[in-house]
Amino acid sequence: MRETEPGIREFEGDLIAGVDIGGTNTAVGIVGEDGRLLSRSAFPTTDHVTAAGFVRHLANTIRQLVGGLPPPARLCGVGMAAPAANWRTGTVESPANLRWGTVNLVSMARGEFGLPVAITNDANAALLGEMTYGVARGLSNAILITLGTGLGAGIAVDGAIVQGENGAAGEFGHMNMELHGRQCGCGQRGCAEAYVSATGLKRTAFALLAERLEESELRQTSFAALTADRVSALARTGDVIALSALEVTGRYLGRLMANLAAAFDPEAIILGGGLVGAGDLLLEPARSAFRESALKRYTATVRILVSPSNEGQMAILGASRCARQTGVAAEAS
Amino acid sequence: MRETEPGIREFEGDLIAGVDIGGTNTAVGIVGEDGRLLSRSAFPTTDHVTAAGFVRHLANTIRQLVGGLPPPARLCGVGMAAPAANWRTGTVESPANLRWGTVNLVSMARGEFGLPVAITNDANAALLGEMTYGVARGLSNAILITLGTGLGAGIAVDGAIVQGENGAAGEFGHMNMELHGRQCGCGQRGCAEAYVSATGLKRTAFALLAERLEESELRQTSFAALTADRVSALARTGDVIALSALEVTGRYLGRLMANLAAAFDPEAIILGGGLVGAGDLLLEPARSAFRESALKRYTATVRILVSPSNEGQMAILGASRCARQTGVAAEAS
Repeated sequence: MRETEPGIREFEGDLIAGVDIGGTNTAVGIVGEDGRLLSRSAFPTTDHVTAAGFVRHLANTIRQLVGGLPPPARLCGVGMAAPAANWRTGTVESPANLRWGTVNLVSMARGEFGLPVAITNDANAALLGEMTYGVARGLSNAILITLGTGLGAGIAVDGAIVQGENGAAGEFGHMNMELHGRQCGCGQRGCAEAYVSATGLKRTAFALLAERLEESELRQTSFAALTADRVSALARTGDVIALSALEVTGRYLGRLMANLAAAFDPEAIILGGGLVGAGDLLLEPARSAFRESALKRYTATVRILVSPSNEGQMAILGASRCARQTGVAAEAS
Repeated sequence: MRETEPGIREFEGDLIAGVDIGGTNTAVGIVGEDGRLLSRSAFPTTDHVTAAGFVRHLANTIRQLVGGLPPPARLCGVGMAAPAANWRTGTVESPANLRWGTVNLVSMARGEFGLPVAITNDANAALLGEMTYGVARGLSNAILITLGTGLGAGIAVDGAIVQGENGAAGEFGHMNMELHGRQCGCGQRGCAEAYVSATGLKRTAFALLAERLEESELRQTSFAALTADRVSALARTGDVIALSALEVTGRYLGRLMANLAAAFDPEAIILGGGLVGAGDLLLEPARSAFRESALKRYTATVRILVSPSNEGQMAILGASRCARQTGVAAEAS
């Protein structure tokens, strides 16, 4: 062990498994102390009807991966990332398509491995990954927003992830942006997620189809069949409604970032997730709304960074990083 | 010195001066290690046309207060609180009615005292005071909002004040609440401060006078002459417009608190400042809008606390607490 920064010690010469648990697939990687991804594998999360079965299969997968590495290969911790994971309690709520309910994956995995195990939500893991190995390397105060089906977020203050009192900080998707706005899955109206997400983009496209008269390929598609990728692809061909939908979505994103800058005074806001694939058609209006809405002190200092697509590698690396920090913190206490 | 909590050491048997620098008056107190305010004094900030003159007078005031205490009375640090103070740099922007410009009060006061000196903004100081000695005693994750002429705020995460990368975190007053909303002094529109503050209450009262037809004593008052206290007093007599103005203001406050709960997942939100004197006429609609707007997980856990009026004592105590933490951190580094 060696001291790297106040309060955080590193394992030396040892391996950590990083696990990214998604609603459909689970990606597993073995990470060296330098942050190199030494080997990786994946399996369908949905193969497992019980959390216990899932953890057993995960353990076998990790053991096989470690067994395949040249000796000395010693596993000394497991870090997991999942949506709705709670770092403080170790629990995770299973995705809607699974039926695990709320399970304590940390205690189950600890029983299986006899090693330090930690879990954090996927956005926190991605932020840890970006801050340690990615576009936010070296930053201490940063916010990450992932724009997928929903809006996920992670916050770092002075180098540490902000968990909140009950592990529920960073729910920016449920900050109100419109007083009498769109219904949100949470039961409220006007939540950021109802505008700034892949689903939000779809809803905005349909609102524009209702409001405006221009021709658009989107008029041939049902709401159920439409995807955010399709909107982006049509925008690239010059479809006016698709372009406007991305612009409106980007402007909401910019306003949200301005509010977060005022709350946290970060060095950077990092944008990731599938929707960011729309590129400047989304990001230019976002940057411009940010410049218009934020106090000058923030527009002068806050950088807007885009997380490169890396097929989920950052979540694996970040999950392993979370285990390194948490595992040793627990050991030291 | 003794260790009280990770990373924070305490002076023992020694005194700290806590200074609350306002645009009009400066309050000074000598605080014992147990947080008792042993003696206090005040002088007009506006007596001093230069920051250097202010610091000299402050130093004399502190020396007199310490000299008046029974021996052994040893001053070992000075903590200051001021609006727009930056903990990271030690600078403060003088209020509009003074002409000091941006000055580094910390380095000036260090030169004068030869002791550890720290400065933080007034809301951070009030939060530190409340968490150490007041209504938020024992809490680690808390937000304080002061409702005066403007909206000030402090944030604590895991026991530490969130300063932000450039000392500008917690500018909740400039989070956008209405897309095409009221002009704000910052140059933007729709900022929280334009609704949730003493000035916001006045503006809401005038908007209601324009919108509605009910009789109201407020129809006899000019905008320039109206105060938030007058609105509250009229509301207590049953004035319908005054009551509605407090209700509208309270509901904006509730929505703001819901957004902050989603961002920070705090244990409590503490409300202070002159406007809170309106009591339940403001706080009931705030609580009810909070319950309606926030995710259930937060309405179940976040307590809304009111800071008792204590004539600025909390800012003095919090400023002294800031010096205890910062002074020793600097010493240890």
